[in-house]
Amino acid sequence: MSDSTGAKRVTLLGLGAMGTALAEALLAKGYGVTVWNRTPGKAASLVAKGASQADSAGAAVAASELVLVCLLDYQSVHDVLCDAQPELAGRAVVNVTNGTPGQARELAAWASERGATYLDGGIMAIPPMIATAEAFFFYSGAQAVFDAHRDALDVLGESHYLGEEVGLAALYDLALLGGMYGMFMGIAHAYALVGAAGESAGSLAPFLARWLVGTDAMVVGTADRIDRQDYTTDVVASLAMQSAGYVNHFVAAEEQGISAELLAPLDPLMKRLVAAGQGHADMAAVVELLNTRKEGNR
Amino acid sequence: MSDSTGAKRVTLLGLGAMGTALAEALLAKGYGVTVWNRTPGKAASLVAKGASQADSAGAAVAASELVLVCLLDYQSVHDVLCDAQPELAGRAVVNVTNGTPGQARELAAWASERGATYLDGGIMAIPPMIATAEAFFFYSGAQAVFDAHRDALDVLGESHYLGEEVGLAALYDLALLGGMYGMFMGIAHAYALVGAAGESAGSLAPFLARWLVGTDAMVVGTADRIDRQDYTTDVVASLAMQSAGYVNHFVAAEEQGISAELLAPLDPLMKRLVAAGQGHADMAAVVELLNTRKEGNR
Repeated sequence: MSDSTGAKRVTLLGLGAMGTALAEALLAKGYGVTVWNRTPGKAASLVAKGASQADSAGAAVAASELVLVCLLDYQSVHDVLCDAQPELAGRAVVNVTNGTPGQARELAAWASERGATYLDGGIMAIPPMIATAEAFFFYSGAQAVFDAHRDALDVLGESHYLGEEVGLAALYDLALLGGMYGMFMGIAHAYALVGAAGESAGSLAPFLARWLVGTDAMVVGTADRIDRQDYTTDVVASLAMQSAGYVNHFVAAEEQGISAELLAPLDPLMKRLVAAGQGHADMAAVVELLNTRKEGNR
Repeated sequence: MSDSTGAKRVTLLGLGAMGTALAEALLAKGYGVTVWNRTPGKAASLVAKGASQADSAGAAVAASELVLVCLLDYQSVHDVLCDAQPELAGRAVVNVTNGTPGQARELAAWASERGATYLDGGIMAIPPMIATAEAFFFYSGAQAVFDAHRDALDVLGESHYLGEEVGLAALYDLALLGGMYGMFMGIAHAYALVGAAGESAGSLAPFLARWLVGTDAMVVGTADRIDRQDYTTDVVASLAMQSAGYVNHFVAAEEQGISAELLAPLDPLMKRLVAAGQGHADMAAVVELLNTRKEGNR
């Protein structure tokens, strides 16, 4: 949909830090942007940059074919879109609110019943990264929406369409965040350990950064083993060796007076595999134990 | 100590995969290398490359001033060095066996009582990386040993001397390994999550590799916050936001039929900080909770 000046229009629901960053990026690229936020007063800086502020969620949805939704959680999304039900028919809803695959599937069905097409999105960036080369987005659901509005979506960051299964964007998003939280847990343990010995975190940081980048081959190697279901490895990397050495983390933590709780959950998984005769296997085999629907796991 | 040909001599106790790699690196650089291993038959390929095989641990220790020890664990180190007690006086023992800071301190005292000087080492590499630019080593303990034998140590990998406190090398080693295991836990969770939806690990891997390298700023940023004891952050990165969104990992895991046990331990720590009024703080504040000797933590 273009306005009278010929500019493409986008509506944005939700003006938190992320929503505001998305609106700014679109304005900077010459898009006509209509914004709405439940709490007033968030739109002033955007209006000064050329955005139109709608009086209601319904009026905002009516203003553009493409409706970007960036709210706190899915409860907020349901609340806001409920208020705009009469205007939803024919709209392309692109929801980048954080949530789960199941929440995305439920919302897609709800939107479809009201005549809207639905694309779900996951933002792999923090607000200052929006519209930079670092930002990337996952999308899943209606490919027609992705294809028709790709220009606008590409303004926000590198766009990756994962498929019609609408839960995929949230799935990939949560997988990457989970990876990051795991990495954070390791970092936190590392700094707590050296800190308890009176060493500054900064004295460890350059080594830790170098080490974790160096173990980045683990990301690709682990994926390869999982997909081939082949956990062959050498003796140094074997679960038997890793599991036997893991006790050092608990002993050292005790010596230094820190809790090793962040590293704890890996220990019983490795031990279970070793006890099951998988001591020769690579650590990647741990992934198989996490699937609770696989026979024998739970 | 030089032999009759003028070559510098090194003794190496322990010919597992790592010990063998260390011996090969020294031989390749023209060092005279005397090797010994409790289980016979491991030395043949090294002898073919010019190594001398000693008949006993004592004879091996007698052969060189510098005695590198690379065994399975500290129990093995004690067993082997006990057999070589009469030969230890005046020797520089560099022990790169995996262990804890406390084990290193205990062994250093034991070696000192027998007239040996002791340097502890941590190897940040797997055997194929030895003597490449990727390998680096931590050392702590007798600086005189480090200075006198730095040429030989530098053959093995980049050498970093951390200080006279002999436990530091093991401490830094375990801190980096802990960081790696945390990262692995995140990776394992990520692949289990997408795998349960029928997605290959390989389809996630490029995104995960990119994302984890991108979050490498977290290593430096977290260290900086810890050292300044300043956990100021913006609202998007705040514990309140992260903690509120963390439930999505458990809900999505339940939806997909996987266990979220690897991500579980971070959740109660974040909640404790939020409950204690630290919701505005950065996640780095979690590190403070891990110190069990700090008042109020346990």
